[in-house]
Amino acid sequence: MLNSIGRELPEEISGRKIIPYFGPFSSRPGGRRYSPPLKAVFPGEKKVVESIREVIKKVELSDGMTISFHHHLRNGDAMVNMVVDEIARMGIKDIKIASTALFPVHEKLIEHIKNGVITAIEGSMNGPIGAYVSTHGLKEPVVLRSHGGRARAVKGGNLHIDVAFLAASMADDYGNCNGMMGQSAFGAMGFAYADAMYADKVVVVTDNLVPYPAAPISIPQIYVDYVVKVNSIGDPAGIQTGTMKITTDPVRLGIARDVVKFLAAAGVIKDGFSFQAGAGGISLAVTKFLHDYMKSKGIKGGFVMGGITGYVVDMLEDGTISRILDAQSFDLRAVESIGRNPDHVEVSHIMFGDPHTAGCIVNRQNACFLGATEVDVHFNVNVNTHSDGMLLHGIGGHQDAAAGSDVTVITIPLVRKKIPIVRESVTTVSTPGDTVDVVVTDHGIAVNPEREDLLEAVKGKVDVVDIWDLQKKAQEMVGTPPEPELEDDIISIIEFRDGTVLDVVRKVRK
Amino acid sequence: MLNSIGRELPEEISGRKIIPYFGPFSSRPGGRRYSPPLKAVFPGEKKVVESIREVIKKVELSDGMTISFHHHLRNGDAMVNMVVDEIARMGIKDIKIASTALFPVHEKLIEHIKNGVITAIEGSMNGPIGAYVSTHGLKEPVVLRSHGGRARAVKGGNLHIDVAFLAASMADDYGNCNGMMGQSAFGAMGFAYADAMYADKVVVVTDNLVPYPAAPISIPQIYVDYVVKVNSIGDPAGIQTGTMKITTDPVRLGIARDVVKFLAAAGVIKDGFSFQAGAGGISLAVTKFLHDYMKSKGIKGGFVMGGITGYVVDMLEDGTISRILDAQSFDLRAVESIGRNPDHVEVSHIMFGDPHTAGCIVNRQNACFLGATEVDVHFNVNVNTHSDGMLLHGIGGHQDAAAGSDVTVITIPLVRKKIPIVRESVTTVSTPGDTVDVVVTDHGIAVNPEREDLLEAVKGKVDVVDIWDLQKKAQEMVGTPPEPELEDDIISIIEFRDGTVLDVVRKVRK
Repeated sequence: MLNSIGRELPEEISGRKIIPYFGPFSSRPGGRRYSPPLKAVFPGEKKVVESIREVIKKVELSDGMTISFHHHLRNGDAMVNMVVDEIARMGIKDIKIASTALFPVHEKLIEHIKNGVITAIEGSMNGPIGAYVSTHGLKEPVVLRSHGGRARAVKGGNLHIDVAFLAASMADDYGNCNGMMGQSAFGAMGFAYADAMYADKVVVVTDNLVPYPAAPISIPQIYVDYVVKVNSIGDPAGIQTGTMKITTDPVRLGIARDVVKFLAAAGVIKDGFSFQAGAGGISLAVTKFLHDYMKSKGIKGGFVMGGITGYVVDMLEDGTISRILDAQSFDLRAVESIGRNPDHVEVSHIMFGDPHTAGCIVNRQNACFLGATEVDVHFNVNVNTHSDGMLLHGIGGHQDAAAGSDVTVITIPLVRKKIPIVRESVTTVSTPGDTVDVVVTDHGIAVNPEREDLLEAVKGKVDVVDIWDLQKKAQEMVGTPPEPELEDDIISIIEFRDGTVLDVVRKVRK
Repeated sequence: MLNSIGRELPEEISGRKIIPYFGPFSSRPGGRRYSPPLKAVFPGEKKVVESIREVIKKVELSDGMTISFHHHLRNGDAMVNMVVDEIARMGIKDIKIASTALFPVHEKLIEHIKNGVITAIEGSMNGPIGAYVSTHGLKEPVVLRSHGGRARAVKGGNLHIDVAFLAASMADDYGNCNGMMGQSAFGAMGFAYADAMYADKVVVVTDNLVPYPAAPISIPQIYVDYVVKVNSIGDPAGIQTGTMKITTDPVRLGIARDVVKFLAAAGVIKDGFSFQAGAGGISLAVTKFLHDYMKSKGIKGGFVMGGITGYVVDMLEDGTISRILDAQSFDLRAVESIGRNPDHVEVSHIMFGDPHTAGCIVNRQNACFLGATEVDVHFNVNVNTHSDGMLLHGIGGHQDAAAGSDVTVITIPLVRKKIPIVRESVTTVSTPGDTVDVVVTDHGIAVNPEREDLLEAVKGKVDVVDIWDLQKKAQEMVGTPPEPELEDDIISIIEFRDGTVLDVVRKVRK
């Protein structure tokens, strides 16, 4: 069975019927939202329990269940290890981890995979766990989803969560909580909304229990069954990982400048201009250069959606944009701003990118600029696997931003460590080419031929090359890339944000 | 069939099986939340439609459907009449109105009842429509619910809404909206949350369309199918109706002083003291006297939940309390405060009082003081009907506050216009006696004998009388009240907040 981007898919994987991808807006959903059980907490009943162990008993966590976490503390998170270690000590097995993302700090989960505590994962795996799964696989393939796609799956019951464990840097004893205040503040809590609203049971874990009622209220008490006080939910210093530093490489800075040049030539940057600011060194540089450009031209932008960094906060504070919509704060300056500035608005990942709502924020973005590990001549983008087939990254908001934004720009060097980045075919399709408009490299800018409007708009202002020429140039520079050595076993399913399937990832031969 | 407060109920009314009331916390719910259909709005698709008529077509409103409204603009609301007039012009019939409450301004709906456009109502009817229904009835009995009970019913699918029409004083073209800003600002939008989240289709109607994205966001775009711009959603001057002025009557002021005296004697007013501030002349006076008392004693309170007025804003602004939780703003000072003060927090009526959540705010209230049209010797309270049987008022948050608060105080004059207010049996049970603790009158204070702790706490400090003595005193003063002249037809069902039935209201003989 082939999907519309030519990837061959089995009709069924691990008992799940596969619906192939057939375009970014190929159908409207027919189902209904998942409906969790009604609850009751009578006056006088308490929600605070003394320990993670105690709460695992209270929620009756048992073999085969699915537990979820958010990754707002990223590589500083202490929650996942804390909870899974306790589950392991209690002898519970066969757990599905539905964390929004796992990071190198969670490497020790590999031991829990080996001992059968964890047998399934739905969610991003950045680094060592991805590497382990690439070469070993799990009992069932890991389902990778975009941020909006995961929110959709939770809301629609495709990803059923038995117990959500939500880290909060401020909470009261009834579970009202936020991530904006406290020693472990991590800013927006966008991932937690879907889990709070649609998990069967919800546990808030905090290291900062405050008198009732806590405010601001990101997650309200009505969803929260229990509250656990721990010494630390993690270290906010771990939020700002390597991918979130602005590039200093002149080549990459050149790519960033070319993005602004292209968008300006295309007439996209005008009053009300709104965009998604991604992480990644080049994207951060684009944000900074856009800021400079808009200021110099006196352009008053609309909103910036993020993944928010201090570079975006600068734009809000000097009036270059009117609002920040923040589902995930990417540095401590963003964390500080969201707790203080009413125009820095927290939003959920449902609102960010869930396609099965009455309209998500990405639909309103004029542009987004996103990184990639590979791009192919059909504008398909890989952000998940490296060219050796190793599954080392999540999808993030990539698909959502690409599908929603008026102009989706991919920023990449043509070659990276002797590997051609523009290729005839990407190793894995993370974001389909029919949602991607422009590829900006250090050897030229290619525009998706479907975007005749853009080609027309920049004619005579910006040089555009054919994407095949970029591919050939890359091949000339470093030769044909070696094929990854793969086995037949499918270790991961790459869903498009609407639940159709873009691609599968196969086991890498050790 | 008798319920636990001795009211006789039929086993079935209009095809609905009646579950009798058996105590305020007699059971935990077994069901699930209502699950509305999934939606999709693709990039480029617009939500703004030009008129109410157009949007009625777009949502495919048809005979027999249920439409809802919130009543935040109270007697200043223009929405209900605007929409129902249009429905009538379009020839649609047999509509159920699920407005949270109707007011005298909606009197013209009576003509739409007569002509068959409206054949059912679930929601409060204050004034003329209540009077009409009392003497005429509708095709099926009107279901009256408390604010928390209505939120529960909407969330649980017991009150299914086909189309919610939500007035907003600020909205953007994607439906993000609030009631805090704009010429028609009405403050908190607590009623709208349940309807936005659980109606099948949602229309935002505004007279203040602002650039995307509007903020603060009370109702997010993800729930909103269409946005309609009209000239006016109503007149905020109509929010502050007669019941919301502080009393100047020395007798009623005396009752208010006695409430504070009682609560102080009972040791309830201490640091962290949190209460619900109701509307009504005596309740407002209690708030003011509590403020004076707490200031004079240096007591630092917790939160005040409301129905919020300027009297409560005063308490927040001088630091007497730490937070306001506001689901409904009762005067323009409250409206102004909620748009500005981050410690004046908007909450939904789900969070206020829905008993089928993981805990609502009323559970955390140390006290509430509420009015009544009648109280009986079993502490049952009537707020719905007058002693002649006319159904002229809604339940409001009465049941919720009474069930949740540690100490529920009813404030009433013993006699009103030659009618005894403390009686052997109330005409209608709106709030059951097992949730009511203290009755403060101008002829003495009675304490529910079940509250031995309170009786013990005030012993020697406050004179307490037997409620039978109050009843006898009232009878001595004005004689035995005449029985209302009723027919057999049931014109209304009085639900307890959990969906069990407290009482029915019968047609009044013309």
